Amino acid sequence: MDMLSEKLGKIYREAGADVLYTTTDYLRRYLTGFPSSDGFVLVDGNGCTFVTDMRYAEAAQKSLEGSGIQVVVGTVAKAEEMLSPYRSVGVPYSLTPYPELLQLQRWGHETVDSMLAFKNAMIIKSEEELRSISKACEIAEDAFNALLPEIKEGMTETEVAALLEYNMRKRGASGTSFDTICAFGAHGSVPHYETGNTKLKFGDAILIDFGCKVDGYCSDITRTFLFGDDGKHGDFKKAFQEVLAAHLLVQETLAAGMTGKQADAIARESLQKAGLGEAFTHSLGHGIGLNIHESPNLSPRSEDVLLDGMVFSDEPGVYFAGEFGIRIEDSVTLKEGRVSSFMKKTRKDLVIL
Amino acid sequence: MDMLSEKLGKIYREAGADVLYTTTDYLRRYLTGFPSSDGFVLVDGNGCTFVTDMRYAEAAQKSLEGSGIQVVVGTVAKAEEMLSPYRSVGVPYSLTPYPELLQLQRWGHETVDSMLAFKNAMIIKSEEELRSISKACEIAEDAFNALLPEIKEGMTETEVAALLEYNMRKRGASGTSFDTICAFGAHGSVPHYETGNTKLKFGDAILIDFGCKVDGYCSDITRTFLFGDDGKHGDFKKAFQEVLAAHLLVQETLAAGMTGKQADAIARESLQKAGLGEAFTHSLGHGIGLNIHESPNLSPRSEDVLLDGMVFSDEPGVYFAGEFGIRIEDSVTLKEGRVSSFMKKTRKDLVIL
Repeated sequence: MDMLSEKLGKIYREAGADVLYTTTDYLRRYLTGFPSSDGFVLVDGNGCTFVTDMRYAEAAQKSLEGSGIQVVVGTVAKAEEMLSPYRSVGVPYSLTPYPELLQLQRWGHETVDSMLAFKNAMIIKSEEELRSISKACEIAEDAFNALLPEIKEGMTETEVAALLEYNMRKRGASGTSFDTICAFGAHGSVPHYETGNTKLKFGDAILIDFGCKVDGYCSDITRTFLFGDDGKHGDFKKAFQEVLAAHLLVQETLAAGMTGKQADAIARESLQKAGLGEAFTHSLGHGIGLNIHESPNLSPRSEDVLLDGMVFSDEPGVYFAGEFGIRIEDSVTLKEGRVSSFMKKTRKDLVIL
Repeated sequence: MDMLSEKLGKIYREAGADVLYTTTDYLRRYLTGFPSSDGFVLVDGNGCTFVTDMRYAEAAQKSLEGSGIQVVVGTVAKAEEMLSPYRSVGVPYSLTPYPELLQLQRWGHETVDSMLAFKNAMIIKSEEELRSISKACEIAEDAFNALLPEIKEGMTETEVAALLEYNMRKRGASGTSFDTICAFGAHGSVPHYETGNTKLKFGDAILIDFGCKVDGYCSDITRTFLFGDDGKHGDFKKAFQEVLAAHLLVQETLAAGMTGKQADAIARESLQKAGLGEAFTHSLGHGIGLNIHESPNLSPRSEDVLLDGMVFSDEPGVYFAGEFGIRIEDSVTLKEGRVSSFMKKTRKDLVIL
């Protein structure tokens, strides 16, 4: 009897090696569903074996009971023996350090690149994966909504970020999916701003780019809003409406079958028409899953074809150095050919606290 | 004039290649002091060049002014041209994916492994690095002390961890150095327990293993204590004193020049004498720096020689499945030949809340 799940069987057959072997954290998690910081996974035509040390083995055995995945206590030292029956070994080249590959070749194996098989499988999310991402998005939105009334004049960027992260963590997130960006005033014009100790003043714009993890899966969301209106935000408000229009146009018109380039063009052309094309200095979006940045790419050069079950960000933004930055970002998926946003609980119009 | 700092010059000369090339996040940070998620660094006999994209270049230029490190806007596509003047290229093999190494060879370079040169440099911390680690430890301790009075019956493990992480974050940590372990009762007997939704009951033991990052550098600390004394903790209290004795004996007697194996033996023999040798199921400690686990190793097989300026954990522990686990951990350094703990603010005796 073939003990391989449909998912693992597909990757195994596509990779075309006698056995798949991986020591990469997130691929171990993808193959087994079990989080660990140590071990390796073998997949052959008959089944899947997870080898990990004492610290994880007991919990893994309990968690994977009935899954068809066999758990074995051991370290990488066991790999030589366990791989010996196989001639060709599939390893994800771009994640495999050079010495690990040489080792496999010294043990007499032919090596085959399994990365594309993983990438092709992981780019389409299962119902279970979509549920985890949806939960991570819901927690992020709930945390943000709980944050807004707590924002007070004089708080630092770090304090605001800390409170938001606490709100996510206590709602069940295992952690952030990346370092939270919280930028006050002109700091918003640096797309990858490092959150600091600047204090919040009346009239500041606030840009927060954040996300959390649930079952290992990430959420990613950005909101830009005003802490009071000092009457000097004419340009900001005009630009905000244009970024919002581009963000929404993507959700209305992006359709399965388009390339990442075509998707990016929806937002880019919309901002160009508004005279803001130059200020949109990055690409529209990136895939989201166990990693915060993965396939597909939604950028001016991407030929990735967007399909049902993919998850990616819709995040147009405009940046004016020394003045302000605006980015509006949802994590979304494609469902029955159209965009379905995971973000349902936070406001999209300009919030003025 | 040689523009290389002493640190970079030492690594460059030890690696013995015409140029050093690295795309690894933490090595970019180590070489430049600047955090980024993109780019590469080149080091030759004349200086250091950091190539990164638009998102980071401006901030990097500002931050690295006067450092002698040149910042260039570009992507990995620029590497081929910038490497072309050099014959041999030093890359950290164990961090370099196989295709990246093949690429360098296709471009006509001889490749040389630079990993050992990095490892030898990074294992001895500079005064500046020690200050960052010390700050990360101080924040962790302050956060823990602020947590204790907030712990209430009925809180979940996740809630306690969330509050502790918030306490670290709002004191200036950029994030956690690893997923916080918060284990109530018998959960403490799983060394890498995954924090969950168990609620705190009177009489529970609480084991918290946590840490945070400052300037990219990690802290690591574990404390085990009681939430009330239900009178059933006789074995726990006896074991606690033995773990504490082993933990303190390491700090009193470990001396520079010992191997990791000899250091481990101090705690292991102490616990063996108390009849707890079998329950000490992991090694004594690991190096701490930009990574939460790095060299040196303090384990029964480690030949690493411990020297002044190294930073590592002192974390003996005992585990009784289904009953309890106790671990007491400090991050420490070697100074003038002896152990100096970074942990000065938290109690070491058994805390009963």
